[in-house]
Formats: sequence, structure tokens, C-alpha cells
Amino acid sequence: MRFGIIGSGSWATALAKILTDNQHPIAWWIRNEATIHHIQQRRHNPHYLHTAYFNTALLNMSHQVAAVIQHADVIIIAVPSAFVKQTLEGLPKNAFNNKKIISAVKGILPDCNELVNDFLIHHFSIDLRNYFTLLGPCHAEEVAAEKLSYLTFSGLDEAMCTAIASYFTNSYLNTIINHDVIGVQYAAVLKNIYALGAGIAHGLEYGDNFLSVYIANCANEMIIFLKKLVQEHEIPCNPEIINYTSSVYLGDLLVTCYSLYSRNRMFGTMIGKGYSVKAAQLELNMVAEGYNASKCIHHTNIQVQASIPIINAVYSILWQHVAPHTAFKKLEAELI
Amino acid sequence: MRFGIIGSGSWATALAKILTDNQHPIAWWIRNEATIHHIQQRRHNPHYLHTAYFNTALLNMSHQVAAVIQHADVIIIAVPSAFVKQTLEGLPKNAFNNKKIISAVKGILPDCNELVNDFLIHHFSIDLRNYFTLLGPCHAEEVAAEKLSYLTFSGLDEAMCTAIASYFTNSYLNTIINHDVIGVQYAAVLKNIYALGAGIAHGLEYGDNFLSVYIANCANEMIIFLKKLVQEHEIPCNPEIINYTSSVYLGDLLVTCYSLYSRNRMFGTMIGKGYSVKAAQLELNMVAEGYNASKCIHHTNIQVQASIPIINAVYSILWQHVAPHTAFKKLEAELI
Repeated sequence: MRFGIIGSGSWATALAKILTDNQHPIAWWIRNEATIHHIQQRRHNPHYLHTAYFNTALLNMSHQVAAVIQHADVIIIAVPSAFVKQTLEGLPKNAFNNKKIISAVKGILPDCNELVNDFLIHHFSIDLRNYFTLLGPCHAEEVAAEKLSYLTFSGLDEAMCTAIASYFTNSYLNTIINHDVIGVQYAAVLKNIYALGAGIAHGLEYGDNFLSVYIANCANEMIIFLKKLVQEHEIPCNPEIINYTSSVYLGDLLVTCYSLYSRNRMFGTMIGKGYSVKAAQLELNMVAEGYNASKCIHHTNIQVQASIPIINAVYSILWQHVAPHTAFKKLEAELI
Repeated sequence: MRFGIIGSGSWATALAKILTDNQHPIAWWIRNEATIHHIQQRRHNPHYLHTAYFNTALLNMSHQVAAVIQHADVIIIAVPSAFVKQTLEGLPKNAFNNKKIISAVKGILPDCNELVNDFLIHHFSIDLRNYFTLLGPCHAEEVAAEKLSYLTFSGLDEAMCTAIASYFTNSYLNTIINHDVIGVQYAAVLKNIYALGAGIAHGLEYGDNFLSVYIANCANEMIIFLKKLVQEHEIPCNPEIINYTSSVYLGDLLVTCYSLYSRNRMFGTMIGKGYSVKAAQLELNMVAEGYNASKCIHHTNIQVQASIPIINAVYSILWQHVAPHTAFKKLEAELI
């Protein structure tokens, strides 16, 4: 298999490291030509994971996304969810014909409230059987440091999923196979909202006892939502055989909620301390993914109709001007 | 209801604070007369939770356990599991007749591998319907600081459980009712072993990605064990209606595994760094509860026959001289 990676942020750079550490050549789309030049000369990405050095003989870098797709059988999409659309929109409708696609995007496309697979089906008529996800609790920095991490590959075609995963497995990376290709993506979206909420709780000066109750209830709510989603949406998987305490669901929730460096958590802390959404965005110079995600899930849940008081609380604070103190006071009584 | 508290450590002191903050008088067994004198004079426990001040008019303290039991209808046992036997052994066989008993003990009695209810049934012929537990993710220090915490009261007699819980509920304490009085105690024991294992992983220099995978798998293993326990032991509860992601199961696991100050975690870290069990015990001047617990659960599982690779790994390190590195290397392949 010839792999192509779309994106050059920290996560894309970590994935490029894994594949090339395993001696697999890659085609690599990097928007900025100066970055490409730097990697060619100095063997590392100047912006992310500076300690990850590449064997440049294995890198075929281009700033033209079409060229990278053309040179690959398996395309890994690893740009932030907010940039998926603009990155791919110039491509012809048949760009992904006969290709396998792996989404490493942790989020919903905010403009259209679509998962990456929905976007690709609508714009490029891909077959869901050719679509896979690569998710799990995985700080890119720890991949760069070669600390053992676990990635879960999900897809309807289990044999292909296993084959793809085998290219990533090495001494610091274990791979897991899962068939719930839709559910895992929602889990990745939900966890950003829950981490943002954990930050709000922290900003409101709740302690560790409360935080553990809160996160246990987030796990519970996530499972309720995902089970309901499967029922309502005829998602091609059996919820009875999904293990929601495995790493791609619960592990990813934990690493995100407990990380003090998570952008969602930091953003939430400022909101809890009384900053407005605008002030927090200006101060942190970024939009936390959980912010848009809370709106997307709120809308999705109009169909799904799951009981999700935690998401509702975060949504009401971020989008309906409910005071954090008020929303959490109400939430307190719902936790078990 | 007249409450009596047996014990004067940090957790017993926190419970005395909650009840007296709620204006309920208590009888309180404190082994050391000097401590009683100090509390009478200075209104706080000199050894634990120094910032918790008491209304001494509500305290009826005694260093004689029989006197405290006699003055109470509801006896709260809040001594470390290793001291339950010696604290209660001089009492007459009918000491608990017509009493309700609440165990706040987070562990198994190490000598006899019994839960507190089993010990009380064997030595005092109590009825399990008069036995309740008070558990949940609750650092005593945060109770002293009046940070909102959640306690779960479990028992077969739901109406009585609700009545007892109502004495504890206040602005910084929410209470939850649960009927799985045996399972919650095993969960409290298991979490100490898992926290010790988290320390070992930390000592072996695994990172946050691995830790989150490890803890998610601990949650998974805990649920497998508890479900199997119910099946094998005819425990009076229906596992289908138990919510294992609620705070008394998952929340307590999280607060213990993620707390850097947990004794189990500290002990485990030293083991992971290569200290022997003896050296770690000498250095820390204490026995971590997870140490004995791993042996108890290992034995219990000979009957239960659950698949518990994480407990087995910790047990093999602590009791069978398997090198931490070797045991975790084997465990790596079992995580999902």
C-alpha cells in the first residue's frame, strides 16, 4: 500500500513519523512550501514535534493535494475538522475513486454538521466500505517521544482494516481493530465537549471529587448517546458487541478530560472563571473544538433524542448565555 | 436516628464533620484519650483535617467502643480494613442487635479475606438487611474544604438506605442510593489495586497515552469481575440494572488512579522504579491497601474465574517476584 498524508500539524507529523519509522514511503501534502523546504534540509517539521526526525528518502512532499492523492492508494486525512472542506474542495469528483481513505480527524465539520465520511460521500461519492478511521487516546507529543500508545482503526471491511493497521504497528504503537466506524467518530467529538465542561468545572472551583463524578457521568452519557445513535440511525454495527470501556471510547475521554494542556479544557476554565466566549477565544488565540461541537451535537440530538444533560449544560453556557454557575448547579442534581 | 462513628482517621473525621454540620449529635469512638481531650479543648482533630472545626456540644466522645455502640442506633465503621478485627473483637456477640451498621471501610479484611459484612455475620450474626455501605470518590480533605462531593449509600433495604442518606445530604454533599451492597465493596477494593498498578506504569515511565488506555481497561476489567461475581455468588442484585459507569464504581476508580497523592499510586511508582516490596514499605512507612488486596482478589478469583489480566499482572509483581517490566510487557498485548 502507498500511503498519502493530507496535513502537517502535530497529529499528521506524528503519523508521518510512525509510517516512515516502519520504513514505508509516504506522499505528504504540506500546504506551506517553506515547511517542505525546511523538512528537506533539516529533516524535521519546524512547527510541530521538533524532535521527530525523518528519513527524507521516504518522503515525497508536495503542496498540491491532488498530486499527493494521485501517488497514494490509502489517503490519510489529518487536518483539523474546520479545514477539511477548504483543503479538499478543489478536487475533481472522482479524486478518491479506487482509494482507501482513513480519517484521523477528531471532529465534525462545523459548517455543515457532517462527519468526514458524510462529507466525502456527498462530494466525492465514496463508498463507506472504503472509509476507515484512526482514533484513540494519543497525544502526538508522546508518539514523538516513542512512548507506547494505542491507535484504534475502525471500518466496515475488517480484513482491510487489519491490513492497514499492520502498517502502523511497531515497538511504540499498538493497534486495535473496531467495526463501529460512525460511533468512534462521535465519541471523539463528544469527548472534546466533555473536556471543555471539565475546564468549566475547574474554573468554577469544583474539586477532584466532583471532577471524577463528572467524568464518570460523561462516560455514562457518551454510552447512552452512542447506543441511541445506533438505534435511531441504522448505523451498520451491533451495539451489543461494542465495548464502550475500550480505549477508543473511554480512554480517549480520560486522556482529554484529565490533560491540563488540552485546549478544550483551558478554554472551559476561562469560561468557568467568567470570561465570555469571545474574550476566551481572543485570549487563547484559538477556537476550542468543543465549542462548535457542542452546537453540532445539540442539533444532532434533536433527532437522536438521547438524555444528555452534560452536553446540554455546556451548550447552554456557550451558546445561550446561561451563567456557568447556574448551569452546573442544575447539573449537580443529575449526576449519579 | 442516633449515629455512632467508630474511628478517628481522616475519613472518620470527615464523616463526623458532615453529620455535625447537619446538626446531628454523634457518639464517637476515638482510641486515643489525648485526641479526645484535644478535640474537646481545641475543637479539631489534631492528627487529621485540622481545618475542620466541630460544635463540641454535638460530640459524645469515648475511647470505649462498646459505649459508643450502646449510645447509637446506626454504627458507622470507619477504620482501615486492617484494624476492623482488633477494634471490634472484644465486643459481645449481641453487640449489634437492633442496630443498623454502615461500613465506610474501603477494603477487605486482610487476615481472613472477608468483606466487613462477612466478618460481622460470622462474629456478630448480623442480618445483611441491616448492613449498608457508604462509598464513592471522596477525598476527605475536600470534604473538610466543603468542596461538593458525592457519597453512595448501598443496601438491600432501599427505604432505610434513603433515610440514612438524608442525614448526610447538605450543600457540599450529594447522596446517591444503590442496591449493590456487595459489588460496591469489591469495586472499592479493586480500585486500590488498579491505582497501585497505575503507579507501577508511571514508575516504568509509560506516558499519559498509555495510562488512559490502562485505566479504561481497568474499568472494563472491574465490570467483568463484578458481573461474574454476581453470577457465581448469588449476590442479591440484578447486574443488568446496575450502572457501572456511575460514580461509586467508575468515579472512585478515576479519582484514585489519577490522584498523585494516593498511597497506592506512590507505592506502585516505587515498585515500578525497581524497589522491592519491603524497601517500598520501609521508605513510605506504610502498607498500601492494594498490596494485600491484590492477594485477596487473586484468591477470590479462583472461585469467580473472571478474566482479570491487570490484577494478575499486579499480583505477579507484588507476590510472585515477576519483574514489573516483564509483567507489563505481557499486559500490553491484552489491552483494548
